Amino acid sequence: MNNLKTMKEDNFLYIMTDEMQTVLQSVLIKNGYKKDKAALLANAFSQNSRDGIYTHGINRFSRFVDYTKNGFVKIDAIPSLKSKSNGIEQWDGNLGPGILNAIAATDQSMKLADEFGIGCVALRNTNHWMRGGTYGWQAALKDYAFIGFTNTIANMPAHGATDARLGNNPLVIALPYSDSAVVLDMAMSQYSFGNMELSVMKNENLGVFGGYDTEGKLTKDPAAIIESNRPLPVGYWKGAGLSLLLDLLAVVLSGGLSVHEISKRSIEYGVSQVFISIKIKNLPNHSAIPLLIETIIKDYKLSLPENKSDFITYPGERVLNNRKRNSEKGIPVIKQVWDEILELNK
Amino acid sequence: MNNLKTMKEDNFLYIMTDEMQTVLQSVLIKNGYKKDKAALLANAFSQNSRDGIYTHGINRFSRFVDYTKNGFVKIDAIPSLKSKSNGIEQWDGNLGPGILNAIAATDQSMKLADEFGIGCVALRNTNHWMRGGTYGWQAALKDYAFIGFTNTIANMPAHGATDARLGNNPLVIALPYSDSAVVLDMAMSQYSFGNMELSVMKNENLGVFGGYDTEGKLTKDPAAIIESNRPLPVGYWKGAGLSLLLDLLAVVLSGGLSVHEISKRSIEYGVSQVFISIKIKNLPNHSAIPLLIETIIKDYKLSLPENKSDFITYPGERVLNNRKRNSEKGIPVIKQVWDEILELNK
Repeated sequence: MNNLKTMKEDNFLYIMTDEMQTVLQSVLIKNGYKKDKAALLANAFSQNSRDGIYTHGINRFSRFVDYTKNGFVKIDAIPSLKSKSNGIEQWDGNLGPGILNAIAATDQSMKLADEFGIGCVALRNTNHWMRGGTYGWQAALKDYAFIGFTNTIANMPAHGATDARLGNNPLVIALPYSDSAVVLDMAMSQYSFGNMELSVMKNENLGVFGGYDTEGKLTKDPAAIIESNRPLPVGYWKGAGLSLLLDLLAVVLSGGLSVHEISKRSIEYGVSQVFISIKIKNLPNHSAIPLLIETIIKDYKLSLPENKSDFITYPGERVLNNRKRNSEKGIPVIKQVWDEILELNK
Repeated sequence: MNNLKTMKEDNFLYIMTDEMQTVLQSVLIKNGYKKDKAALLANAFSQNSRDGIYTHGINRFSRFVDYTKNGFVKIDAIPSLKSKSNGIEQWDGNLGPGILNAIAATDQSMKLADEFGIGCVALRNTNHWMRGGTYGWQAALKDYAFIGFTNTIANMPAHGATDARLGNNPLVIALPYSDSAVVLDMAMSQYSFGNMELSVMKNENLGVFGGYDTEGKLTKDPAAIIESNRPLPVGYWKGAGLSLLLDLLAVVLSGGLSVHEISKRSIEYGVSQVFISIKIKNLPNHSAIPLLIETIIKDYKLSLPENKSDFITYPGERVLNNRKRNSEKGIPVIKQVWDEILELNK
């Protein structure tokens, strides 16, 4: 990591989304994925990077290929229905690719919502879904409200504790907005390890306290937090509590593994997830909803920024800006990361 | 407020729960409530205080009576069903007492869960539900998983903004645990105004940054935050985003008023709420669930505390401790608060 501390603009390449997708798909096919699955996966990874979520796009791709090679991710596995009780279903992900399982689970939760107004799919034995927002966008663009969450390997201490026994358990909430979506995608740690690593690379401090150093003092120094392994839960006791409850819900509803059980393994696989969709078109007020949402977002954006040059953005808005810029100019990729991927494609 | 800065032990009275309930019920009957409704309300207010949630128990009672007198809370109103689509229903609270409406909505969400596995009641035109945890306990003790949230009047700026356009929109998640429950009840501000006022009374600083002073600096001084009206969202941009999404969901699903609309009024009434219950007994793994939950909580409580004398508590655990102590020793009540209530009972 240290040799990247001096990273400058010329350490980046700019790759067009189509090219990235083609290369990733080719690597996946070389690693045993059938063409249609490889296409879906390459699409998700490159869209995550295109949308500016680099930590769960291209930067994570090589690790995903490794997990596939090592058998933690089962190439041909597809989810299987384990139980059904009207609007709620349990599925087993059979350790298939987390992105594909999550896309399927989101689709299924929408089908349940078509039938029951609200639908819940609880998925066990699945793998990292990469960017949670993917599934929020998926549902919201089809006019559903969406709530989803996943557990993870333990990576965050409880409030007031020094050892990591909580996952950062990302929570996603999404709604359609105009011809786009409002998508909140938040992990329960103030910063993800991916983002802290990026700040180390850029030799930058965090904007707010992100965790504790080895002395137990709150710090903005990402390297100190990575060293202590004590990232801060969002809002201290509140984010810690929310993380615990999301794990409990995911485990109870799916019958899958908890953060505690997942953490007995050296690497993260076999996580538990929940996907809840609500069919907005079934609501009697559905024709008024687009204007309702627009009015709320408009008012929110009228907020007076502390720094006059700032804009107050809603969750998902930066994604749109990144998407536009990266679609036009290419996706910035750390040269070393891209070289590794090209190596995999040989 | 300032004259309370020197508050000491002899400013408190200790009132037994039964006595508190009897007095509150009597005040409500004097103010026009029928006996059964007065009993339910008095029960909720005194249980909130007994459980240590003083800010939404006895300390808020006089204001509730005021709102009733002024017609913001309609004494005889009961919720009415507005639409039904299998597992999801919209109800109008008709501006009835928020506690009673929320109890009814929670019950109804459990009935929907009985039928559809998962049930969602969206409630509009209702009033402050006081302590969100009340409804989490209500559902969890009957063996349901529960997710609920409410919007509020604007009381928190967006991240990076100076004017309050977000509500602190409390979120409740609950699950049964042993013969009790795990209940997370979190507002999206790091501290509630009620808690900050209490800290001012006690002449104490907050444990962590709770907001900004009038200079725009992060501070632990509750009086400075009350003055600036800039409480901090939980986890900065994350809690602000979650607050916005909860408001959007509550408004879209219920067809009710948004934070923005509520805030056009000088006082908070006519809020929007969502109650989602999931029937755990319908899950095929239901017999394994109590042990699953116990294992997770046990592991969490094994966390190594930073200060060796601390205990890491799960959401709802402090409530049990408060409940036990206050049930035995009486509920601590600020003398002035109790005197005002006795005055109302004359």
